[in-house]
Amino acid sequence: MNLWIEEKLENIYGMRFRVTEVLFSGESQFQSVQVVRTAGHGVMLLNDGFIMLSERDEFVYHEMMAHVPLFVHPDPKRVLIIGGGDGGTAREVLRHPSVEECVVVEIDGVVVRACCLHLPKTASSFDQAEVVIGDGVAYVAETDRTFDVVLVDSTDPIGPAEPLFGEAFYRNVHRVLAPDGIVVSQGETPWYKASTQRQLSGVLNRTFTLNGVYNFSNLTYPGGLWSFTFASKGLHPLMDFDEDRAQESSIAFQYYNEAVHKAAFALPTFQARDLNGATNL
Amino acid sequence: MNLWIEEKLENIYGMRFRVTEVLFSGESQFQSVQVVRTAGHGVMLLNDGFIMLSERDEFVYHEMMAHVPLFVHPDPKRVLIIGGGDGGTAREVLRHPSVEECVVVEIDGVVVRACCLHLPKTASSFDQAEVVIGDGVAYVAETDRTFDVVLVDSTDPIGPAEPLFGEAFYRNVHRVLAPDGIVVSQGETPWYKASTQRQLSGVLNRTFTLNGVYNFSNLTYPGGLWSFTFASKGLHPLMDFDEDRAQESSIAFQYYNEAVHKAAFALPTFQARDLNGATNL
Repeated sequence: MNLWIEEKLENIYGMRFRVTEVLFSGESQFQSVQVVRTAGHGVMLLNDGFIMLSERDEFVYHEMMAHVPLFVHPDPKRVLIIGGGDGGTAREVLRHPSVEECVVVEIDGVVVRACCLHLPKTASSFDQAEVVIGDGVAYVAETDRTFDVVLVDSTDPIGPAEPLFGEAFYRNVHRVLAPDGIVVSQGETPWYKASTQRQLSGVLNRTFTLNGVYNFSNLTYPGGLWSFTFASKGLHPLMDFDEDRAQESSIAFQYYNEAVHKAAFALPTFQARDLNGATNL
Repeated sequence: MNLWIEEKLENIYGMRFRVTEVLFSGESQFQSVQVVRTAGHGVMLLNDGFIMLSERDEFVYHEMMAHVPLFVHPDPKRVLIIGGGDGGTAREVLRHPSVEECVVVEIDGVVVRACCLHLPKTASSFDQAEVVIGDGVAYVAETDRTFDVVLVDSTDPIGPAEPLFGEAFYRNVHRVLAPDGIVVSQGETPWYKASTQRQLSGVLNRTFTLNGVYNFSNLTYPGGLWSFTFASKGLHPLMDFDEDRAQESSIAFQYYNEAVHKAAFALPTFQARDLNGATNL
């Protein structure tokens, strides 16, 4: 069988992966959801044809989203994940012994179901997390709970994820965060989505005391060089980084380590220029 | 016209770029050489169908190959480039005011000709460089000249570039290097070529006093996360890094800067583990 999936970018670029088996194919009210087994990248999840994760490299995204803020916050107990329906971010969060509550608010129950069936590597974390199938925008507007860290593990700003890049949402994230709270969000790629990165940073800059961008290398997202945004009510990702706690941690990191934490904030010149004052770290 | 070029990796992955014009197509005695104009990545050079560079991101590779060793060496005057037939590495080397001699030894005259015709952005540096069309392996075996920095700007270790990954070659590189000499080489990707990276590092470890690996993000190479090897007779890439000279430089960097220089040596955990003692930085 010579079957390939392809993710195209603006009709200028395509990434193709060879598929050996289609494990799941469904339509939710929000999007199409596919899970496929590939020849070289393990099981992959796709929403509307966009690659969400591969088993081969998912650890990079999930470790970098979770461990950077959780080793900056001095005592993260309550973590809220918006999106993250594959469970990978929750898995990394739950590796921190201080964490007592890990709430995952995923809008699409079909994503959660597909991952529980075919991606236990990430979805097995749902045994320990509190999973809410619902709209993250409404959740942060309505909840009376407070969190130490919020992780916005969203898709690109199209369809159901679009409000997750807006100012109204982040004002509510600020509201649900404790006084030393941190929010980290999926921040797109500086190669192809510099304007989205600048716009999201601008929103965070107007809403939070500190905000910046840090990078990681994604194998299965177009561009390779991808970013998270970091914003807080005062904690600094480098000056408040508890390096000893990271070094002494018993977590079996595959990508993250203390040097990578610090290096991730060193932005290439073109990226820093494109952000054009929208960050203040 | 719906024309795409595709680079395939081990029948598991493919990268496709939309082409608007074929500018050059030739066969040398070593390989096929193509230059195409793309819809989103500028002009691209391909050897045997493998992407060598795109105008859109070539600055990353060329800046990181040249500036890291040239800001570590205290007074780089004489630089030898093995390969580098597009001229991009020479362009960055020649931006350093201390450089008096820049020798480019490229095996394939057709590559040089194609780039002079269609890639002036990189090849215009040949006006100031000393270009030798010849075998780099033979050159370092036979020359009686001495260099401060050698840059091995090679393709993958197949065909004419294969000996450039071997010990005999690096013993001669050591021979032509001055007592405080540095050699930086194209080091493949930790995602798909970990064994090549370890093997090359092992060769350098046996041949030089210090050796390590540093990373950069390549937009048009499979894997995104790519590496250079750094080896020297004693200069350390971080402890001997002349940060002030880099900061005060008038070079208009697009990717490189002092923070990126240092961050590039922070390796992800899986990569450091895969190198398995083949480095000693």
